[in-house]
Amino acid sequence: MSQFSYRYSMYKVGPVLSISHGMGIPSVGILLHEIIKLMYHAKVRDPVFFRIGTCGGIGYEGGTVIISEEAVDGALKNAYELTVLGKNIQRPAKLDKRLARELKALADPEDPYDTVTGKTMCTYDFYEGQGRLDGAFCDFTEADKMEYLESIHKSGVVNIEMESLAFAALTHHAGIKAAVVCVTLLDRLIGDQVLAPKEVLDEWQQRPTKLVCRYIKRYLQMKGRLSLDGHGSIAVKSPRRFKLVQQESETYD
Amino acid sequence: MSQFSYRYSMYKVGPVLSISHGMGIPSVGILLHEIIKLMYHAKVRDPVFFRIGTCGGIGYEGGTVIISEEAVDGALKNAYELTVLGKNIQRPAKLDKRLARELKALADPEDPYDTVTGKTMCTYDFYEGQGRLDGAFCDFTEADKMEYLESIHKSGVVNIEMESLAFAALTHHAGIKAAVVCVTLLDRLIGDQVLAPKEVLDEWQQRPTKLVCRYIKRYLQMKGRLSLDGHGSIAVKSPRRFKLVQQESETYD
Repeated sequence: MSQFSYRYSMYKVGPVLSISHGMGIPSVGILLHEIIKLMYHAKVRDPVFFRIGTCGGIGYEGGTVIISEEAVDGALKNAYELTVLGKNIQRPAKLDKRLARELKALADPEDPYDTVTGKTMCTYDFYEGQGRLDGAFCDFTEADKMEYLESIHKSGVVNIEMESLAFAALTHHAGIKAAVVCVTLLDRLIGDQVLAPKEVLDEWQQRPTKLVCRYIKRYLQMKGRLSLDGHGSIAVKSPRRFKLVQQESETYD
Repeated sequence: MSQFSYRYSMYKVGPVLSISHGMGIPSVGILLHEIIKLMYHAKVRDPVFFRIGTCGGIGYEGGTVIISEEAVDGALKNAYELTVLGKNIQRPAKLDKRLARELKALADPEDPYDTVTGKTMCTYDFYEGQGRLDGAFCDFTEADKMEYLESIHKSGVVNIEMESLAFAALTHHAGIKAAVVCVTLLDRLIGDQVLAPKEVLDEWQQRPTKLVCRYIKRYLQMKGRLSLDGHGSIAVKSPRRFKLVQQESETYD
């Protein structure tokens, strides 16, 4: 619906909306405020939100699918802190435990990779904030880094990314069932740089999407909104309408 | 150079690099780490960094150009806080005062808008974090909001945006001369929503760019790297090379 805009590209397929949220808490935060408002005005009942993305694994090799049990910040706190009118407020960064279990149960034992659950650490910075040694600055040593990563690993952190804290807190605050499913691009206990070739990374990135698609298919079948007999009838869009949508979208580019 | 990638689109014109930094501190932070490393490896001497963007004015009507004197967070602290290896660290969010004065001096008295300087507040959230009443949630009243905005106005804050804190802190930490020049899209003392039509917003957004271009032209003339006699010779790119760049760029799409 806004594929010609460079941010928040949005696609709608039947009752499913898929939107790119950009990088970091501020970007996903703006989107969530707007989508939660959209759900409200569109009178959507019981929507389910998923964040699908990539992450660094802590003790898990590249290609592992991780379903978050909860989100924690860089100091292991299970809350999203924000400054509102000059005051610090905190919102619990909780995710739906049952949804996480249902997703885990949909992992295919035949999959040539693991699907695991655990705590997800969410940081504001990719380099220093995630203990990387390869940013522009680094005031700590390899030994300091490893000590930190081992300690968060012991606390149950299985991966690190940059959006789950706000995603969990804002959906929880709105009473929306939500899950975070990411694929690891590397094991941070082994290194800092993503070294897998582009083709491999592309295949890895399909994995969380496949799992969430299994959930959506099952959910829609359950609700009687999906028939597996055929592909359904696809309404051919009028080129004029398409042109119109393109123009609207370019307007906000 | 990466115009086909949806993030960090980069253009190079002579010695000038122009890159989109995305929304929010995490996004601009990743880019700065990578560009500071690039400057180092390319042996660039004394680069000058500018953030050009949009903001909400505090006491200034839409279309006003604001040059930041320094960046402060939502609690008025002039430092960028980040969690590194589980510990909170703070970096002064300082900008180059002389560069800000030089930019101010380049404002054309004939311009049909004001160019001012002052403190810039940088937030992690666009809605609650900036005291807006029109997000998905809002636990405060119009009166609370106005009291807050009036109080930061009295403290010298002239605008609010979402990147300057990390931009000022990381460039200052790297010893890079930097400035933030933004155009206001509205006066937050009057409302929360951007109501100006698209064409007006487009013209407003040219204003900070024009000011920075005046600085760049003068700088390059001073360094004898720009002749105003003609437009210089423009090397026509080989289509093959262009294709290659496109492919490289798509790889990281």
